[in-house]
Amino acid sequence: MPSLPDMATPDAAARAQEQAAGQTARPEDTAPEMRAALFEGLLRLGDNTLILGHRVSEWCGHAPVLEEDIALANTALDMIGQTQLWLGLAGEVEGQGRSADDLAYLRDVWDMRNLLLVERPNGDFGATLMRQFLFDAWHLPMLKALMRSSDQRIADIAEKASKEVSYHLERSTDLVVRLGDGTRESHARMQAALDDIWPYTGEMFIGDGHDAHLAEAGIMPTPESLRTEWDAYVDAVLREATLKRPEGDFAHKGGRQGTHTEHLGFILAEMQWLQRAYPGAKW
Amino acid sequence: MPSLPDMATPDAAARAQEQAAGQTARPEDTAPEMRAALFEGLLRLGDNTLILGHRVSEWCGHAPVLEEDIALANTALDMIGQTQLWLGLAGEVEGQGRSADDLAYLRDVWDMRNLLLVERPNGDFGATLMRQFLFDAWHLPMLKALMRSSDQRIADIAEKASKEVSYHLERSTDLVVRLGDGTRESHARMQAALDDIWPYTGEMFIGDGHDAHLAEAGIMPTPESLRTEWDAYVDAVLREATLKRPEGDFAHKGGRQGTHTEHLGFILAEMQWLQRAYPGAKW
Repeated sequence: MPSLPDMATPDAAARAQEQAAGQTARPEDTAPEMRAALFEGLLRLGDNTLILGHRVSEWCGHAPVLEEDIALANTALDMIGQTQLWLGLAGEVEGQGRSADDLAYLRDVWDMRNLLLVERPNGDFGATLMRQFLFDAWHLPMLKALMRSSDQRIADIAEKASKEVSYHLERSTDLVVRLGDGTRESHARMQAALDDIWPYTGEMFIGDGHDAHLAEAGIMPTPESLRTEWDAYVDAVLREATLKRPEGDFAHKGGRQGTHTEHLGFILAEMQWLQRAYPGAKW
Repeated sequence: MPSLPDMATPDAAARAQEQAAGQTARPEDTAPEMRAALFEGLLRLGDNTLILGHRVSEWCGHAPVLEEDIALANTALDMIGQTQLWLGLAGEVEGQGRSADDLAYLRDVWDMRNLLLVERPNGDFGATLMRQFLFDAWHLPMLKALMRSSDQRIADIAEKASKEVSYHLERSTDLVVRLGDGTRESHARMQAALDDIWPYTGEMFIGDGHDAHLAEAGIMPTPESLRTEWDAYVDAVLREATLKRPEGDFAHKGGRQGTHTEHLGFILAEMQWLQRAYPGAKW
C-alpha cells in the first residue's frame, strides 16, 4: 500500500501561516469580507462531512458483512462529529446565535456549501468506497494544512479530525486496492465506480475569492495547493489497485457556492424532516 | 380481457344504504363515535390515494417509454385530486379547521391510515403495475359501493372518482395481461411482483369497529363485502395473464390503524419537507 501523504508541500498559504504564527487571528473581528470568507470556509468544511456522513450512514444495516457495516457506521459518526465542530465554529463566527444544529437542520439547498462529490448516491459498496477514498485522499492533506492555520480554533479542530481521517484514508486505500486488484467482477465494478465519480473530483481543487482571502491570511490553504499531493497519492493507489485513472479533466462544480445536484434536496428532506416537523425538539 | 366488475353484489351495507336512501345523513352531527368513524373512514380513503399518488409520481421522468411516463403521471394526478376531496371532507367532518393540505402535509406516520400495500416501494415497472392493478381492482368496487352511500357528499366524490378509476383499472388490467402473457422475461417479472406484493392485499378486506359503524349507517361498505368481487376479477385477469395466484393467505396489516412499514417515513419526509420547512407557504 502506498504510504500516507507526508504533507511536506510548501505553498503560499503555508508561508502566510508561518508569518502569522504565534498569534491567533480572529478575522471575524476585522474586515466584513474576511468574516464572510471565514464563515463560508467553515460551512464548506462542515457541510462536506455532514452530507458525506449522512450518505455513509445510509449503509447502516445494509453493508455486505458485519465488520464493514460497523466500520462504515463509525466513519459516518466521525464525520458527523467533525461537522459539529466546524458548524459550531461557523455559527460562532457568524455571530447571529445559530448553533451547529441550526446550521445543519435549518438551511435549504442553496445555502449548503458541500462538494458535489459527497452528495453522489451511494451506488454499490465499491462505489461508496471509491467515493470515500477520493474524498479521504483530499480530506487528510486539507486537515494537515489546517493544522497550521493562523486561527488556533481551526488548527485545534483539524488536529483532532486528522487522527480520525488518517484512519479513514488508510482503510479506504486498503479496500480500493483489495477490490481493484481482486476478482474480475470486483475490478470491473471499481473501475466503473472510478469512471463514474471522476468528474466530481475536480471541484475539490477549484478556488474562489473566499479561498483567496483565507489563504492570504494564513487561515486555510487554497484548494489548488492540495492538487499535486492528491494526484500523486491517488495515482499510486490506483496503480496498485490495477485501476486506470480516467483521462478527462472535466469537473462538475458549483457545490461550494451553493449550486447542487437534484440529490441534495432528497438528502435534506430525510435529514431535516424531524427538526422541521418538530421545531426545537430535544431528547 | 375480462369485463370490468359490474358491482351487482348486494351486501349488508347496500341494504342499509337503501334504507337510508333519500336522506343525506350528517353523522358528524350525531354520535361522537360515528363522527370518529367517519373521520377515520375518510382518512383511509384519502391516505390511500395520497400515498399511492406520491409513489406513482416517483416514476415521473423515469418510465420505460414516454407514453407510459405520461400515463403514470396522469394516474398519480387523478389520485392526488381524489385525495383533495376525501381529505377536504375529512377536515370538514373533524370540525377543527384542518384543510386537506393540513391533513396531507402535517400528520406524522402514526396518524396515516393508508393500506400498507400503497407504501410498498415501486420496484420495476412491472411491480408498479401489479401493485396498481391489485389496488384498482379493489378501488373501483369500493367507489361503486360508495356511490350508494347514505352520505350524499361521499356519493358525489365517489361518482367523480369512479370515472377516473374505471380507466385506471382498464389500463392496469391491460398491462398486467400484456406483460404477464408476454416474453419469458416479462412473465417472470410479473409473477415475482405478484408473489412479492400478495401478502399486502389481504388488509384491503379486514374491517374493524369503525368500518362496522359506517356500514351500519349505510355510509361505507364493510371491507369484507368487497372480497368476493375482487377475487373473481383478479383471478380472471391473472388467468388471462398466465400468472399463478399465490396460495398463501397471510396478510400484513396495521396500516389502516396507523401501524406502518419503514417506507412510509421516507415518503412523508420527501412529501412533507416543503410544508414543514416553510410553514403555510403559498404560491
